[in-house]
Amino acid sequence: MISEIQHTKSAPVKDVQIEGGLWGERQATNRNRTIPAIYHQMEITGRVDAWRLKWKPGDPKPHIFWDSDMGKWLEAVAYSLMTHPDAALEAQADAVIDLIEQAQQPDGYLNIFFTAVEPENRWKNLRDWHELYDAGHLIEGAVAYAEATGKRKLLDIMCRYTDHIDARFGRDEGKLRGYCGHPEIELALVRLYHATGEKRYFELSKYFVDERGQQPLYFDVETVARGEDPRNYWAKTYRYCQAHVPIREQKTAMGHSVRAAYLYSGVADIVAQTGDAELAAVCKTIWDDLVQHQMYITGGLGPAHANEGFTFAYDLPNETAYAETCAAIALVFWAQRMFNLEHDSRYIDVMERALYNGFLSGVSFEGRHFFYANPLASFPNVNPYDRFSGITTEQHYHREEWFDCACCPPNLARLIASIGSYFYSTSNDTLFVHLYNQNRSTLTVGGTTVRLAQQTNYPWDEQVEMTVGVDAPARFKMALRIPEWCRSYTLSVNGAAVQAAAARGYVTIEREWANGDTVTLRLAMPVERMAPHPEIRQDAGCVALQRGPVVYCLEQVDNGPRLANVALPREAKLEASFDANLFGGVGVISGEGVRVEPGEWQGSLYQPQSVVKVMQKPQPIKAIPYCFWANREPGEMRVWIREI
Amino acid sequence: MISEIQHTKSAPVKDVQIEGGLWGERQATNRNRTIPAIYHQMEITGRVDAWRLKWKPGDPKPHIFWDSDMGKWLEAVAYSLMTHPDAALEAQADAVIDLIEQAQQPDGYLNIFFTAVEPENRWKNLRDWHELYDAGHLIEGAVAYAEATGKRKLLDIMCRYTDHIDARFGRDEGKLRGYCGHPEIELALVRLYHATGEKRYFELSKYFVDERGQQPLYFDVETVARGEDPRNYWAKTYRYCQAHVPIREQKTAMGHSVRAAYLYSGVADIVAQTGDAELAAVCKTIWDDLVQHQMYITGGLGPAHANEGFTFAYDLPNETAYAETCAAIALVFWAQRMFNLEHDSRYIDVMERALYNGFLSGVSFEGRHFFYANPLASFPNVNPYDRFSGITTEQHYHREEWFDCACCPPNLARLIASIGSYFYSTSNDTLFVHLYNQNRSTLTVGGTTVRLAQQTNYPWDEQVEMTVGVDAPARFKMALRIPEWCRSYTLSVNGAAVQAAAARGYVTIEREWANGDTVTLRLAMPVERMAPHPEIRQDAGCVALQRGPVVYCLEQVDNGPRLANVALPREAKLEASFDANLFGGVGVISGEGVRVEPGEWQGSLYQPQSVVKVMQKPQPIKAIPYCFWANREPGEMRVWIREI
Repeated sequence: MISEIQHTKSAPVKDVQIEGGLWGERQATNRNRTIPAIYHQMEITGRVDAWRLKWKPGDPKPHIFWDSDMGKWLEAVAYSLMTHPDAALEAQADAVIDLIEQAQQPDGYLNIFFTAVEPENRWKNLRDWHELYDAGHLIEGAVAYAEATGKRKLLDIMCRYTDHIDARFGRDEGKLRGYCGHPEIELALVRLYHATGEKRYFELSKYFVDERGQQPLYFDVETVARGEDPRNYWAKTYRYCQAHVPIREQKTAMGHSVRAAYLYSGVADIVAQTGDAELAAVCKTIWDDLVQHQMYITGGLGPAHANEGFTFAYDLPNETAYAETCAAIALVFWAQRMFNLEHDSRYIDVMERALYNGFLSGVSFEGRHFFYANPLASFPNVNPYDRFSGITTEQHYHREEWFDCACCPPNLARLIASIGSYFYSTSNDTLFVHLYNQNRSTLTVGGTTVRLAQQTNYPWDEQVEMTVGVDAPARFKMALRIPEWCRSYTLSVNGAAVQAAAARGYVTIEREWANGDTVTLRLAMPVERMAPHPEIRQDAGCVALQRGPVVYCLEQVDNGPRLANVALPREAKLEASFDANLFGGVGVISGEGVRVEPGEWQGSLYQPQSVVKVMQKPQPIKAIPYCFWANREPGEMRVWIREI
Repeated sequence: MISEIQHTKSAPVKDVQIEGGLWGERQATNRNRTIPAIYHQMEITGRVDAWRLKWKPGDPKPHIFWDSDMGKWLEAVAYSLMTHPDAALEAQADAVIDLIEQAQQPDGYLNIFFTAVEPENRWKNLRDWHELYDAGHLIEGAVAYAEATGKRKLLDIMCRYTDHIDARFGRDEGKLRGYCGHPEIELALVRLYHATGEKRYFELSKYFVDERGQQPLYFDVETVARGEDPRNYWAKTYRYCQAHVPIREQKTAMGHSVRAAYLYSGVADIVAQTGDAELAAVCKTIWDDLVQHQMYITGGLGPAHANEGFTFAYDLPNETAYAETCAAIALVFWAQRMFNLEHDSRYIDVMERALYNGFLSGVSFEGRHFFYANPLASFPNVNPYDRFSGITTEQHYHREEWFDCACCPPNLARLIASIGSYFYSTSNDTLFVHLYNQNRSTLTVGGTTVRLAQQTNYPWDEQVEMTVGVDAPARFKMALRIPEWCRSYTLSVNGAAVQAAAARGYVTIEREWANGDTVTLRLAMPVERMAPHPEIRQDAGCVALQRGPVVYCLEQVDNGPRLANVALPREAKLEASFDANLFGGVGVISGEGVRVEPGEWQGSLYQPQSVVKVMQKPQPIKAIPYCFWANREPGEMRVWIREI
């Protein structure tokens, strides 16, 4: 139970200037490569022109998700403009917004597919057709863009559309008692409420959250209304979209993992506003289930391609892990919200795990290729999202320039562009420092403006130096996160050691801060062999290497083929070093492993062990950060390494 | 290359009376339970009545495979009658044959679906619609039934139908240059030729084999003729049905595994008749590929559900292994044919592996429940043939009473009923003994009638005693198979040791045999730890237990849950014993294993190994024959056991 809802705010994106280091480099790549590449792909695939609503029979059909791709791209642009103004980019976004404006219908409705292609099917299939999801992403884009530029055009468009939606859905007579098969609008509406002050938007979000899964099930009702049989639902169960029972009766993370974590984020937003203790408990119960039973060590969610989602507790296959990039992103959203409800670093520990691993793996180092699925092991011909995988292809799994269903690339772009917002939270008296990377930020704690500068090469280096800037000496608490992975740390202020125990994962320094005060935090960062929970059968007998928040992997290019036969003796020493020439400078782990293989093999596939004589040969191993895998020569990859 | 095609005949079913032992018991269960249960299922699902052709719109549709189910059932009945006459069963079969007779059309055509339901679609889609496959199974049933009973009605029906097919397909002007998407008729036509002496049937088989994969591809041609686009083929490639290039250009086992092994069996039949060296080489090349790269240790074939078939070399996942029962059966057919082309026990080694393991697992001990897929590991909620596996079910994978596509149960019934035929082959001068189990047989070697009796409790016991009965002393060779798994054996005739080396897997005793001569063969049968080929990543670090031809597995009911954590120390002693109370008496393997698990686990899914302290606790292990798994309390199962 969350006993008391706490009210903390994440730092505004614009107030955190990230300067170099891992996230600075990633943001630069995002800005210079990823955001333009996504626009280019949207252009050549017709996602820009589609807003002109010129589709006619015989043309390729726009996809029902295209609106959301643009919404997320605009949001990414908005965040990028907040820290790095760019007139040309802003003009490009303005032009798109003009197109969107023209696509809005007189009644406020706004959707490419259900205006240009199948207007007769508006709101006919909320279960599958994503109209409200599209609206949600456009709302988020509108809110961010108004905040970034002060331009309200898209925000006004989306308010008109939301008014239309509000008039259409709800419990009042004559309204449809529907909600979206793909949650997203719930959290978007709360943002729109905060941006506009219009309480109806919050109430609509609350309605969507509460109505979901109520009897009679709306998805049954609308299916029958279409003249179809609900029993023929392709996904077999509304657990797929978390709509089988009301959220208040749900106890485990289930179904499509992106839908799930977006929904839970929206629920957390409702809690933050209402203090609803029952809903808060639901959030916490599902969170615990997720992180204790269903999360990859990379922060990836959802092992299965079939439902793009969860299966059952401790079922975490590696090669076929779906672990959609969007699911890691949604987990970051949810984690941030959970922290702002309850100040406990366990949420940020998970957020950090996802950010440095299963999220960042979603984009190539050069920034223009993307993973949809993020498996934890890879083998030629095995592809986690192709059911004919291994049968007709002869390829290594690799990042693609684009996807037919392109949710991940712009989602990733908006998170990288807004990553600064995840570094800090503030309350009336406390400045929480969650993440470490070089940055210069201006934060408000109570009434005090605090300029904070971080100097560090985290996560490759243990030391973080922070310099405090204040106009006049000011008393407030600085709460520094001691990550779950860190078992020993030292802390000093202006060179004098501070002895303080961490509480709920934060060491709090309360003092009157003077301009120029420096805080030095050293987080001991040994190479850890991480053991899997004993119920995870797919990882039995293996360890994963982790240093700081970063999970490492073996790639064939460094370690040769047949990585399943590469093992780490229990006593083998492992050393971390910094490779300045790899991916702009990253940590690597090396050590003395062994290769366990028979000397030679002839004939049948299976032979008495006494005949084939399996041998152990020394093999130096080199592990690189998982998030950078598949950026060099293609080949096998493994996170979980046999231990002998 | 097979340098010279050898002509050997497998023993006629009727001449091998199996008496008790593993196969005697399995045959009794097949006769008393399986064959009646299959008829019952066919009756209640409409497969019997469907022959009346009374289908009308609105009725449930017969399946396009139903004819083949009945064909295989009749074949199973025929074999059973050969060794165990049963007037009631014969009358039941006769009644079915009367129904089939009435279903035959005036032009000879015979197919339930394409007569009663979609007559307009006859021969319109050979790629997907299985008409020739259905015909093949009915032909096989007809040949066997005529041989068993002397009644020619079904044989005459099928000759008329085959004449119709022969008039329809071929290279002559006005004929369709087609062949079946699901091979089977090829081998059936060779049997029909042998049963009737009608050479046209053989030529038709040869045509189907040779025409397959020729340009222009017939499946393209017929698809275009239906007004469809061949690029939309659901399986993406004709490799699925081995029809992308002519068989003479094929080098690896690929596609749907049952189709593959039926096709290769048909090709071997053509070789046996024609001595075609090129085709013989194709058979051998594909065989080598299959057994060296793509076969499970159980003799299972085809790891993937997506194509019910092969993926790529060394890709042999265990939990999701498809390894269809029918594929193991088809492998047995092919292996028998390969031996009869080339006297080498390597074919019979594979046949024996499939028979005792991945084939026999297809039916429950009590005989009325069936596996379609035969995975090598099982975990609650994981189901190799449900793409939503683990998402909506809460079950252990278990045998079913029936399937919508019910190919496996009657296929299995016909093989068990005819198992005697696989025990022996004879040539002009040699009696080959392939399999060991109590039986009394009457075989013809050259002109000599040999009565052979085997006394043994193989595969649980090492010793086999054979007694020869002849009317007068006769000179011939008896070639006893020394299985690949056997690394030491002793042999005596009438108590006198015989020193003879095995050649191509057979020890040959040439002598003048007198009535009552006894041969005693002792095949040393230690428990073997079988090592997997080092390229099989899914088995890395594991061993499988095998004793004699039998592969063993761990079940949860004997070994507790979390079988992934149960390991065998490299030096642990393993002992075989006979458990008279288990499944009517089977061998079991026991030994001292360890359970490798942390003492306790709290909190996150992943923790530093130095914190959780993984411990090894002694755990007695008990392994049972894989073929009998899932017959007791449901739970986990594993063939490949971690070794430490």
